[in-house]
Amino acid sequence: MIPTITAFEQSPDHGQGLARDMSVRWALEEVGQPYDVRLVSFSAMKEATHRALNPFGQIPTYEEGDLALFESGAIVFHIAERHAGLLPNDANARTRAITWMFAVLSTVEPVIVQREISMYLEHDKVWHEERLLIAEERIRSRLDDLSTRLGAGEWLDGAFSAGDLLMVQVLRRLSGSGILDDYPNLIAYVVRGEARPTFKRAFDAQLAVFTGKPSSQLERDA
Amino acid sequence: MIPTITAFEQSPDHGQGLARDMSVRWALEEVGQPYDVRLVSFSAMKEATHRALNPFGQIPTYEEGDLALFESGAIVFHIAERHAGLLPNDANARTRAITWMFAVLSTVEPVIVQREISMYLEHDKVWHEERLLIAEERIRSRLDDLSTRLGAGEWLDGAFSAGDLLMVQVLRRLSGSGILDDYPNLIAYVVRGEARPTFKRAFDAQLAVFTGKPSSQLERDA
Repeated sequence: MIPTITAFEQSPDHGQGLARDMSVRWALEEVGQPYDVRLVSFSAMKEATHRALNPFGQIPTYEEGDLALFESGAIVFHIAERHAGLLPNDANARTRAITWMFAVLSTVEPVIVQREISMYLEHDKVWHEERLLIAEERIRSRLDDLSTRLGAGEWLDGAFSAGDLLMVQVLRRLSGSGILDDYPNLIAYVVRGEARPTFKRAFDAQLAVFTGKPSSQLERDA
Repeated sequence: MIPTITAFEQSPDHGQGLARDMSVRWALEEVGQPYDVRLVSFSAMKEATHRALNPFGQIPTYEEGDLALFESGAIVFHIAERHAGLLPNDANARTRAITWMFAVLSTVEPVIVQREISMYLEHDKVWHEERLLIAEERIRSRLDDLSTRLGAGEWLDGAFSAGDLLMVQVLRRLSGSGILDDYPNLIAYVVRGEARPTFKRAFDAQLAVFTGKPSSQLERDA
């Protein structure tokens, strides 16, 4: 059975692959699971039909038979649990990979999202500059710790896992900010993630929504 | 094997049970798993010994034989996966309960934590009042959706689960704010969570750290 996910009809990031469907697409590519996509407009996201799938009126959602899920982290975990490739077989290593999934979503992503809120929702405030600096300081504090832990490692805990997938995706939100420049090992880590063929396929598929070209066409153009 | 968790030596909430060890204590009580606690000072949390357990220098951590975890969400999930009582047996219901865990941590908690950051870290700013109002507005937006979804239900998806445990804990952070007053069903939901004997035992245990009385003594005093 092919699952159906939802994505923005018009992504606010113009196809940079920062919307939350990107993590789900990437996870599905990692495990080799084909999927269908249903595009949702901003107004449809807030209507009852979509809220039956996601009470908070957001994308992505995931439907597979009689199972309906929301939250990109939960969907990635579901995919990782049902298919080989995103979580190690060893019980302790598997638990540590899941720990990194939670660490991304609870400890790293919130400080990064705050910077975006500052930039896009509070840019007209007189205190915007001051708040932005505070937000960036909090990001650097987390990245200091993350960079130290990653060290010279290729991935966060041995083999690539769902934890790395989510972490790379959230660090990508900082591209263009200059903040990652102080952390060469984190830049290399993101580059390693983006270099995976699975990432490329997922990226092209979400970009095709924006450009209107099918992703296979995009690949031929490249 | 009895696991060891870490908690604040001096909790900033003075024993209100809002520190992240409370979720882990409550989960351990729900599944009937005894545990040891090692208290950590603010300075020790930032040292290499503790950072080997949690790279971000936070509590709680969880040690069990050769397994070391961090992130309260991940630890609660680990407990829920290894013991009966926090996740349904039915596969789809289990996946939905896990979805709620992620929803708490990714969608509800971040907006609530922003209010605390505003109150405790930005109270000396001239823009403090304006920021606080914005933070509260974002919280209400999430609570509108959450309250609608919960409706007249007892728990988020049928039986009490690890998703409810985390959600009740995060909503408790709003006590005293007056924000929950507009959502009688969410107040009743939090009260239902706090009425569980497992909650009471976990709460007393964390309070005992602050009062210096063993929790059994507290129970006798009550």
